[in-house]
Amino acid sequence: MFEVIGERINTSRKKVQAAVADRDADYILDDVKQQLEAGANFIDVNAGARIGHETEDMRWLIDTIQPIVTVPLCLDSPDPAVLEMAFQMVKKTPMINSISLEKDRLEAMLPFLDGKDCKVIALCMDDNGMPSNANDIIGRAVLLVKELNKIGIKTESIYIDPLVQPISTDSNKGVMVLDAVRGIKNKFPEVHITGGLSNISYGLPQRKIINRTFVTLMMDAGMDSAIIDPLDKAIMATIKTADMLLGHDNFCGGYLKGVRSGAIKS
Amino acid sequence: MFEVIGERINTSRKKVQAAVADRDADYILDDVKQQLEAGANFIDVNAGARIGHETEDMRWLIDTIQPIVTVPLCLDSPDPAVLEMAFQMVKKTPMINSISLEKDRLEAMLPFLDGKDCKVIALCMDDNGMPSNANDIIGRAVLLVKELNKIGIKTESIYIDPLVQPISTDSNKGVMVLDAVRGIKNKFPEVHITGGLSNISYGLPQRKIINRTFVTLMMDAGMDSAIIDPLDKAIMATIKTADMLLGHDNFCGGYLKGVRSGAIKS
Repeated sequence: MFEVIGERINTSRKKVQAAVADRDADYILDDVKQQLEAGANFIDVNAGARIGHETEDMRWLIDTIQPIVTVPLCLDSPDPAVLEMAFQMVKKTPMINSISLEKDRLEAMLPFLDGKDCKVIALCMDDNGMPSNANDIIGRAVLLVKELNKIGIKTESIYIDPLVQPISTDSNKGVMVLDAVRGIKNKFPEVHITGGLSNISYGLPQRKIINRTFVTLMMDAGMDSAIIDPLDKAIMATIKTADMLLGHDNFCGGYLKGVRSGAIKS
Repeated sequence: MFEVIGERINTSRKKVQAAVADRDADYILDDVKQQLEAGANFIDVNAGARIGHETEDMRWLIDTIQPIVTVPLCLDSPDPAVLEMAFQMVKKTPMINSISLEKDRLEAMLPFLDGKDCKVIALCMDDNGMPSNANDIIGRAVLLVKELNKIGIKTESIYIDPLVQPISTDSNKGVMVLDAVRGIKNKFPEVHITGGLSNISYGLPQRKIINRTFVTLMMDAGMDSAIIDPLDKAIMATIKTADMLLGHDNFCGGYLKGVRSGAIKS
């Protein structure tokens, strides 16, 4: 089944930032409830945007959200100290967002992750920047899996983000990442593939049709998770429909439920 | 590039039947012009619905359409005599719709096709009915290619229709045909894959989102043609978008043109 990581609780969003600054729990709880109702499988929590306040904002957000959340949190920070505090607070096995092959980040994150029971988003990013072809992405995924396995993170707990790049810069950027996902899933059938999707349409008009067509292609290639806004009905409807077409929805039950609830419309 | 076979000139459509009965050339020409403007690469012509009039209706339709048509016709009839007459009339190398492995049809069509310069739609149907799994579809495609190659039809002129079946009857019907398309393209990289798409959503509500999500998956698997209504803007927009994402649209030129003309909207 496809797993949706709800991206809305992020202080880089203006209204969320205001709610966090005002300690407006009702606003945050209402947003999380909507994400859960829409089908989020994880709630991402990112408190990084108010410089100097990340630790206290993250603590308040987790305190606020945890009593009502029925799914695990995705703890989203580059700072291992913030993640360590958050990790000690959560009651369900969390997802950590994220590690990469950038030297500083890798060296900071590995000791934090060592021996922990958690899921991890692993970005195919290194100090040379974005990957430039499918083999490059696959090679980085292999290194990430190797590093994480070494410290006890099982392959099935790793969510590789192949880093979607804008097709407006190069017509091959779609095929590149689709081939990479197939290559990664071929090497590690049990690994998960996740990531944001909307970068694909950056710089082009009418982005929604590109994003929803692209998520369909990515799901066909093996993507089984995405970091998205679960309140974006069009993308959620496409994901449910593609999941059905790819044989993951017995008797079309999930699809029909989505239609009845109004979540899926043509 | 994806090839659209425009399906509208078919006397089983009520308005087309009336126009053909009344010899209303303006109606037919207007419809064909709209299909061409929308991007049809072939215009299918089917005159089968007025029993006893197929030959004269087909002749009139070709006489009417041919002066304005800038793409080849797809001659759509089960009757080799009608096809032979139509074949002699057309000025561009036509597509023939269709042959299958059903004994009567195969035996009637092979002598007609023998030695002819044309493209052929070949249905994965035999006297046992619809195929029941991916290997069954692939096996039928192999037989069709073999029979057609034997009489001089090159593999690159063959358009295999794997026969899309309703997912409402079996959750596996999507994966089955997707796997079959991959298997056929693996055996015959130069063969084309075509067919109708809307059967996939038969019996389910909100069919359009299923159809457009499915065409995206089929294109990813290797489908490079479809028999559709080119005036269905949503499906055409999805096809253009998927074509871009699959690397077939340099500098996103076709996509951007589609947006500017209003053909592609989110």
